[in-house]
Formats: sequence, structure tokens, C-alpha cells
Amino acid sequence: MDSTNSTVGESVDKVEDEVARVVEQAKDLQDSASSLISRSSNDEQSLRQRALSLESSIRRCRSLLDSALSHKLLDPKLADKLEEDLHRARCIMLDGDAAAFLPAKAQGRFLRMFLGPINVRASRKDIQLKVKEEYNGYRDRTALLFLLFPSVLLILRSWVWNGCLPAFPVQLYQAWLLFLYTGLALRENILRANGSDIRPWWIYHHYCAMIMALVSLTWEIKGQPNCVQKQRGVQLFLQWAMMQGVSMLLQNRYQRQRLYTRIALGKAKRMDVVWGETAGVDGQLWLLCPILFILQGFEAYVGLQLLKTAFVRVVSEWQVIFCGILLVFMAAGNFLNTVQTLMAKSKFKAKMKRSKSKQELD
Amino acid sequence: MDSTNSTVGESVDKVEDEVARVVEQAKDLQDSASSLISRSSNDEQSLRQRALSLESSIRRCRSLLDSALSHKLLDPKLADKLEEDLHRARCIMLDGDAAAFLPAKAQGRFLRMFLGPINVRASRKDIQLKVKEEYNGYRDRTALLFLLFPSVLLILRSWVWNGCLPAFPVQLYQAWLLFLYTGLALRENILRANGSDIRPWWIYHHYCAMIMALVSLTWEIKGQPNCVQKQRGVQLFLQWAMMQGVSMLLQNRYQRQRLYTRIALGKAKRMDVVWGETAGVDGQLWLLCPILFILQGFEAYVGLQLLKTAFVRVVSEWQVIFCGILLVFMAAGNFLNTVQTLMAKSKFKAKMKRSKSKQELD
Repeated sequence: MDSTNSTVGESVDKVEDEVARVVEQAKDLQDSASSLISRSSNDEQSLRQRALSLESSIRRCRSLLDSALSHKLLDPKLADKLEEDLHRARCIMLDGDAAAFLPAKAQGRFLRMFLGPINVRASRKDIQLKVKEEYNGYRDRTALLFLLFPSVLLILRSWVWNGCLPAFPVQLYQAWLLFLYTGLALRENILRANGSDIRPWWIYHHYCAMIMALVSLTWEIKGQPNCVQKQRGVQLFLQWAMMQGVSMLLQNRYQRQRLYTRIALGKAKRMDVVWGETAGVDGQLWLLCPILFILQGFEAYVGLQLLKTAFVRVVSEWQVIFCGILLVFMAAGNFLNTVQTLMAKSKFKAKMKRSKSKQELD
Repeated sequence: MDSTNSTVGESVDKVEDEVARVVEQAKDLQDSASSLISRSSNDEQSLRQRALSLESSIRRCRSLLDSALSHKLLDPKLADKLEEDLHRARCIMLDGDAAAFLPAKAQGRFLRMFLGPINVRASRKDIQLKVKEEYNGYRDRTALLFLLFPSVLLILRSWVWNGCLPAFPVQLYQAWLLFLYTGLALRENILRANGSDIRPWWIYHHYCAMIMALVSLTWEIKGQPNCVQKQRGVQLFLQWAMMQGVSMLLQNRYQRQRLYTRIALGKAKRMDVVWGETAGVDGQLWLLCPILFILQGFEAYVGLQLLKTAFVRVVSEWQVIFCGILLVFMAAGNFLNTVQTLMAKSKFKAKMKRSKSKQELD
């Protein structure tokens, strides 16, 4: 009995000791964690200060350089070298690890509206790149579905459904479209918060497309009799969506290639999502641009057709008019942005040529 | 001329020096940033290891304690003390600064679907709490609108629109509902990733409500003749939405009070969003519970009414049947979850009573 009792005593002691040890460890852990957090927030603060002061130094240098150039005080060769140095300093700061400590761009109303005040900025460069890669992959998958889904609907319409779309699959497709554009808009806002230079228009474009998908959901899909005439609007909408798929596929291909070229040339920050913008891979550009313009033309055409459908009073819901106006607006915006980018590109090219010929003269 | 030249020379030198200094600074900054990042990721790694090993120690202690208790090797008083100690250790780890270094719960498909693989976990406790506070504020604002929007529609319907709702304002409301539930579901998933113990059902409930809002958008709102009969479904839907507003307002009030009480008692992690769950502020509970049950009953009633409307073939769209089934399902889920929570609460209470009377006996 004595030996059993002593074993019991031992085991009780052991439990007591273990629990005491665990409580001690928990307190230690809490202390270490809180000191680590305060230490690294101090370190980050001081790095942030240095990054900010460096940024203003770079700005000062640039204005010094510009004024020296305008007074012709500098040898052109030296000026080019200095300009290049400044550019390099900027790239090191914006592309390197220090970028994580620069103050974030404001996250914008759209993200706040859906997510609240949560921070979506990745602090490490490799995670930022993973986000970017995933976004590209998402766009690829999306573009394929974009092409496939409306095509299948249109094919079934003429082969199986005798020219008359049933409401449910079309509405399913429209709901998917809404989900998709919301996802794209959220992801692009997140990329922007992570330092990508995506042109604002392409995000606005996705807001417009979101609204369009939402409106199209409320759009009553009428059936027989006179189905073909009544569903003219839906049919045009599906055709537009198909064209969007084609244009996304082309842009994805082009942009990815261009991005890799630009990364290789050291010109781009790797977070750039510059699809729709068009500086770079020259040969492909002259294939892409006409196709883009044709697609934009088709977008405007679909919009005008919708308006026409609405005004000859075959389909007179407000949704048709609204979608028509929105499509024309989106086409115009796309066109303007593509032209702007082309102009920026040709300006950039002219500048490069000038500096090249200057160097050759020297 | 000489003096001008020397000034020029000086200024050129100055620009050169400045640029060289800036490039140097940029390199330094890059070095510091990359060393800070690698250092803090090492520190974090080691803290994570310690937190994990502490977690398993706590588990081991608990099982030691349980087996000691089941063999009646421990004095009940001592056992209570040890149990309390263990609980405290757990709380320190889960609520303290170390919590940021515990491996995150997986972020779930819903967030990945909309946002991609971005991390939404705040590393600092104060930011987590800010997210929580903002969520509570969002729910308050939402609940008011929830009550207001459908009420206004129903009032206008009988006073201005002569019993016949026009399509546009209803669809606007349904779109807003969709946006709102998406926002709530995203925020709740984010809270979950930040360590909140929100019951999964309430998130599923919001997924169901999202689907319902989406489906209701595709639901054709028929007008004259026979408007009252044709719009019976829409009217029921609006009534349900109003009731949701009432139930949200009540729950918000109750939950916030309960949360503050629980924080004060040191029982809850502050990230808990336990609305719908019902342990705590006792007096209010006996007011809240009957109201909740009535609201759930009404939800089921609306669902059954929708089904009835659909099956007597007044309104025979699939949307009406679908929403009817969904409402009955949601009502049943809400009921089951409320009952479960009540049972958990009464079990907890019984246990507390037992240990109290034991202590008194001792």
C-alpha cells in the first residue's frame, strides 16, 4: 500500500510541476512575443523614415539635374550617366525589400466597402509575386471560361433550343459573370495596394462590367412567341461577352510576354499589371492593336444595337437602354486608353532614339 | 568669366556628389531592409516553434490531469486550481501577443475565391481589434438599413403605389442586399482568419442569404393586372427581410453587451463574434430567445407561404420555389443552432453550479 501511495504522490507532484512549468512558459512566451513585436515595429519605423528621406533626396537630385541641364551646365554624357544612376536608385528602393516599408497607397473605397479596414498588403516581395502569379493564372482560367460559356449558350440556342434561350442557364451565366468581375476587381485593387501600376481605367472597366452583369440579372428573358426578336438583346450581350473572352486571352498572352521582357530589361517593377497598356514586344503589338480596336468597335456596335432595340420598342425595359449606354461608354474608354498608351509608347520611343543618336554623335 | 566657370564647376560637382550619395543610400537601405526582413522572419519562426510546443505541453497536461481525476488521485480543490492554471496558460497564449505567431487557420475557399491567396490576418492585436470594432459598427449600420429599406418599400406600396410595387426600386434593394451579404460573409471569414470563434453556421447562413438575394434578382416582378396576387412572393420576401433587420438589431445589442461582459470576466477572446450564440447576460437572454424563436418561426412561415404560392400556380417561377425551400432550410438551421447554444449554456451552468456546491461542501 505504501508503495502505491508514494507512486500516487509522485504522479500528483508531477502533474503539479508540469502545470506550473506550462504557466511559466506561457508567460515567457507572451513576454518574448510582445518584445519582438515592439522591437520590429521600431525597426520598421526607422526604415520607413530612411526610405521617405531617400525618396525626397531623389526628388531633389532630379530637380538639380533638370536645372543644370536646362542651363546647359552639364556634359550630355555625364547627364545621361547621372540620370541612369538616379533611375537605378529609384528602382532599388521601389523594387527591393525596402518597398515593403514605404507607406502604402491608400487602399481605396472598393476594398474598404467589401472587406473593412483590413490590410491586404503583403510585406514580403516573394508573397507579392505569388499574388501576382496567381492573378495571372486566374485571368487565364477566366478568359477560357469567358469564351466557352457564352459560346456554348449560343451554340445550344441554335442547335438544341430552336433559337429560343431558356432563362435559367442564361441567368446562371450572368450570376457567374457578376461573381467573376467582382473577383477581378477585388484582386486588382489588392494588386494596386501591393504596388502594382495597373492603369485605373482597367479597374473602372471591371466596375462597369460588374454593374452590367448585375443589371443583366434583372433583365427579364422573354420566351415564345417571337422569341428571336424578343431575345435580340440577350443574344447581343452574349456576343459581347464572347468577344471579351477573345480580347482577354490575347491581352493575357501579350502582357505576360511583355512583362517578362520588361522584367528582363529591368524596366518594370514586377508587380506591374499593364495589360491594355502597350509598350514593349513590338512585333506582337501590331497584331494586337488592330484586333483590340476591332473588338472595341464591336463593343460600341453591340451597345448601339441594344439602344436601337430599345428605341424601336421591341424590348423596352430600362435594362436594355442602360446596358447599351454602358457598353458605348466602356468602348469609348477602352479606345481612349489604348490610344493614350500607344502615344506614351511612341513618345518613349522617340526619346530613346534621340538619346541614342546623341550618344552616337558623341 | 573665370568666377562663373568655377561656380558652374562647383554646381556640377555638387550634382554629381549628391547623385552618388543617393545611390549609396539606396544600396544601404536595401541591405538594411533585407537584413531586417530575414532577421524578423527568423525570430518569428522561433516564436512559432515555442508557441507550438507550448500548445502540445498544455494538451499533455490536460490529459495527465484528466487521467489523475478519473483515478481519483487528486484532491478536488487542487484539481480545480490546476485546471484554472491550465486555462489561464491557454488564454495567455491565445489572447496575448503570441497569438499572432500561431499558425493561421486555413483561410477557407470563400476568401480564396474572391481575393486569391492574399493574407488577411493582422499580425498585431490592436489591428485585429480594430477590424472587430469596425465589423460591429458595420453590422449596426446595416441592421438599421435592413429595417428601413424594406419598410419604406412596403409603406410606399400601400400609400403611393396602390398595392403594386414597381420593379426598379425592388431590384435596387435586392442588389443592395446581395452586396451587403457578400460584404458580411467576406468580413466574417476575415474575422475567422484573425482568430474569432464565430460559429460556422452564421457564415453559412450568410452564404444562403447571398444566394437568395442573387436568385431574387432574377425573379421577375410582374405588374397589373392582378398585381397583389402576382406580387405575393415579393411582398413575403420583403417582410422576411424586415424581420431579419429586427433580429440583427436585437442580436447586435445583446452580443455586444455579452462580449463586453465576457471580456470583463476574462472568458472570451476578444475576437469572438458570437452573436446568435447565447451564453451570458442572463436577464436579456430570456427576452431575446423567445423573440429569436418567433422570428425563426416567421422565417419558416414565409418559406412555406412562398412554396404554397408556387404550388397553387399563381406565381410558378423556379425562383419562388427555390427561395421557399432555402428559407425553410435557413429557419431550421437557425433554430437548431440556437437550441444547441442554449444547451451548451445550460450544461456550462450546471457544471458551474456543481463545482460551486462542491467548493461549499469542502
